[in-house]
Amino acid sequence: MPVTDPTPPTTQRRGADASHYEARYSARAAGAVSSVMRDLMALAERPGVITLAGGFPDTASFPREKYVEVQEVLAREYLAALLQYGPTEGLREMREAICMVMAQEGAHTDPDSVLVTTGGQQAIDLTMRTFVDPGDWILAEGPTYPGAVPSFTSAQARVRHVAMDADGMIIEALEEELDALHRAGTPPKLLYTIPTFQNPSGVTMSRERRERLVALAHERELLIVEDNPYGQVRFDGDPLPTLWQLDAGAGWVVYLSTFSKILSPGLRVGWAAAPPPIVRKLNLGKQAGDLCSSTTSQRFIVEYLRRFDYREHLAHLNGIYRRRRDAMFRALEEEFPAEATWSRPQGGLFLWATLPDYIDTGELAARALERHAVGFVPGAGAFCDGRGRNAMRLNFSGVTEEVISEGVARIGTAINEMMELQRMFGGGT
Amino acid sequence: MPVTDPTPPTTQRRGADASHYEARYSARAAGAVSSVMRDLMALAERPGVITLAGGFPDTASFPREKYVEVQEVLAREYLAALLQYGPTEGLREMREAICMVMAQEGAHTDPDSVLVTTGGQQAIDLTMRTFVDPGDWILAEGPTYPGAVPSFTSAQARVRHVAMDADGMIIEALEEELDALHRAGTPPKLLYTIPTFQNPSGVTMSRERRERLVALAHERELLIVEDNPYGQVRFDGDPLPTLWQLDAGAGWVVYLSTFSKILSPGLRVGWAAAPPPIVRKLNLGKQAGDLCSSTTSQRFIVEYLRRFDYREHLAHLNGIYRRRRDAMFRALEEEFPAEATWSRPQGGLFLWATLPDYIDTGELAARALERHAVGFVPGAGAFCDGRGRNAMRLNFSGVTEEVISEGVARIGTAINEMMELQRMFGGGT
Repeated sequence: MPVTDPTPPTTQRRGADASHYEARYSARAAGAVSSVMRDLMALAERPGVITLAGGFPDTASFPREKYVEVQEVLAREYLAALLQYGPTEGLREMREAICMVMAQEGAHTDPDSVLVTTGGQQAIDLTMRTFVDPGDWILAEGPTYPGAVPSFTSAQARVRHVAMDADGMIIEALEEELDALHRAGTPPKLLYTIPTFQNPSGVTMSRERRERLVALAHERELLIVEDNPYGQVRFDGDPLPTLWQLDAGAGWVVYLSTFSKILSPGLRVGWAAAPPPIVRKLNLGKQAGDLCSSTTSQRFIVEYLRRFDYREHLAHLNGIYRRRRDAMFRALEEEFPAEATWSRPQGGLFLWATLPDYIDTGELAARALERHAVGFVPGAGAFCDGRGRNAMRLNFSGVTEEVISEGVARIGTAINEMMELQRMFGGGT
Repeated sequence: MPVTDPTPPTTQRRGADASHYEARYSARAAGAVSSVMRDLMALAERPGVITLAGGFPDTASFPREKYVEVQEVLAREYLAALLQYGPTEGLREMREAICMVMAQEGAHTDPDSVLVTTGGQQAIDLTMRTFVDPGDWILAEGPTYPGAVPSFTSAQARVRHVAMDADGMIIEALEEELDALHRAGTPPKLLYTIPTFQNPSGVTMSRERRERLVALAHERELLIVEDNPYGQVRFDGDPLPTLWQLDAGAGWVVYLSTFSKILSPGLRVGWAAAPPPIVRKLNLGKQAGDLCSSTTSQRFIVEYLRRFDYREHLAHLNGIYRRRRDAMFRALEEEFPAEATWSRPQGGLFLWATLPDYIDTGELAARALERHAVGFVPGAGAFCDGRGRNAMRLNFSGVTEEVISEGVARIGTAINEMMELQRMFGGGT
């Protein structure tokens, strides 16, 4: 910016330290803590650090010539409109395109049932704003998406985790939680679930459990928030029906997704699909939250989807991710101790590894980052009740196979160091 | 999108109507109402309707060749990064550029005191999240920004309005409100103010009142939220110091602004500058809210500012807006009844007109839109206490001088019809 400013900055006399403002924060802000993930992602930006922490898609393979072609069309035909405010609910063409993307997974809806959001994160956050009062109970898988935890906390929700196995959420465990909450007179406001390639576990809910879950929701009037960012990021196996599809318009599913994993997270375009009365409430929350999502980004996606088949690019990405996942499997076999176990995802961006009980992955993460320049997400960030301390989330989408191998080897070294310390002293670092 | 889907949409059996979910909404969602403004903006999108309602900058004058040039550089040098997630606080280069934009108004700060937000709206909303518990009092000018009202409501704030005159907020009135709240044992969490070209009144706070306001804030430990989207949208008169500058780093001002009025609202990039402890709290709210703002948009603005002087484009815009404002002044003189008065802004996008007491501008807006195809913002939306019923906000930035003249004439006709009805029947429509 060719800007000169003759006045030097005033000396900042910020005598005010954090304690200065403590008494003034709201209860939800006072209680807010950074998700472990975001802190680590910040640290992991240091040069030389290998990060297996973030959920970064491979944006380097996005075709440059298509980006340029779309921007040229936009500049020629839509410039004034794409630089302008848009409607809170999102551009109509964007919502129509979202309906087509959802239809690819058999999840049919109409544009009036869709709200465009600023990434999938805002869709989660608006859902919490809309349904959760301080102290309300909600249900979520254990582990759950670490990035959803701050939204739960910000809404001052109380969270009960529902146990999972290799077929996803255990429906009997869900029924027990429901029974307990109903008996206590505090039925849950909603169930937050990621049925496909769950973040962080990598687990996919079986078809039979999906059907039982939706039947149970209808029977018990349980509102399901189905977060499905990874449904089309599948490398192996056959697609399964979404909960939205199984609900068949009965109105017990709010469906969330995003373009972050199928096109680009930098554009910040996600969405919620829901029965229209709920869409209207989410819309009111969004009016307060950020008025509208980027018109520039929406128009880019609409024009991209009009000119190109996003499924071709996605198939290319899925091929890359499959090879990276396999590289991670191989590295884990070679580098992790025999006591470790991990999930075997057929898609998505993550797997979940479990270490011996006496390894605290929070301590391990600090050691791995400081001494071995490698980052991952410690498991405790994926629970609201202190569990997950011997587990970790590993991302396989963001870096090359070589870097994955090196990163896993470094973590393996850090684990071996901690196991050695345990053997010698019976404690941690 | 060349996508075919063989499966027809399932028949939606959305038997569930709004009442189905009523018991499940949070208190803040149950109480949420659409800002009058957004509803009208939606209606005003109908073809043939002249809208003087929205705060739309003139994006049609954005230079196409500069947009293309910047996008070409981005595609060549930054493509993978601009499509990727970015840090919650915003790109460092973006925060550095924001410091330079603020320095143009004498408001000096450093990048660590800046949080990039998804438009100025998110900056307001995060501030409310961070400081306001349900039932807390806040202070705001009367009238205040109609778009801030949903953020106040969503935080379940109670609002006391501070009276204004042609020199902005009346400091004695502020002291009275402060005294009353302190006596009641409920001191306000913050004061929300737009000192320059206030939305909706168009009024600018005098230098002397700015100095008194900041001195009072220091004396009474009043946290000021200074919203300054329009400071550089000045056509007449000399710039005045920001409250941020007058605070001189004492830490009693949170400063909010946006690129919406100086470059483009469609990009959705705004910011908050604050003492670092507050920035950290706002950052936690943003992690929950939308993770990060569009990297694509941030990178566009950074590169635009690096290559071009935004002040040249802004000077061009300000020339356009001055002529449009003057066209509105002329039209108001000609078309509005002698009993009407209006503010005389030296910049910004809005003026505020006051009609005889017996004219309800909510009714007038309905009549104007339905019978005369013209929209404006009724004044009641700018108050939290039911006042403003005989006032209106008129925007002069979004349409040409000819359209402004025609739009004001149509509103004048609607007013005359209502005055005639009053004379005949002593009532409204």
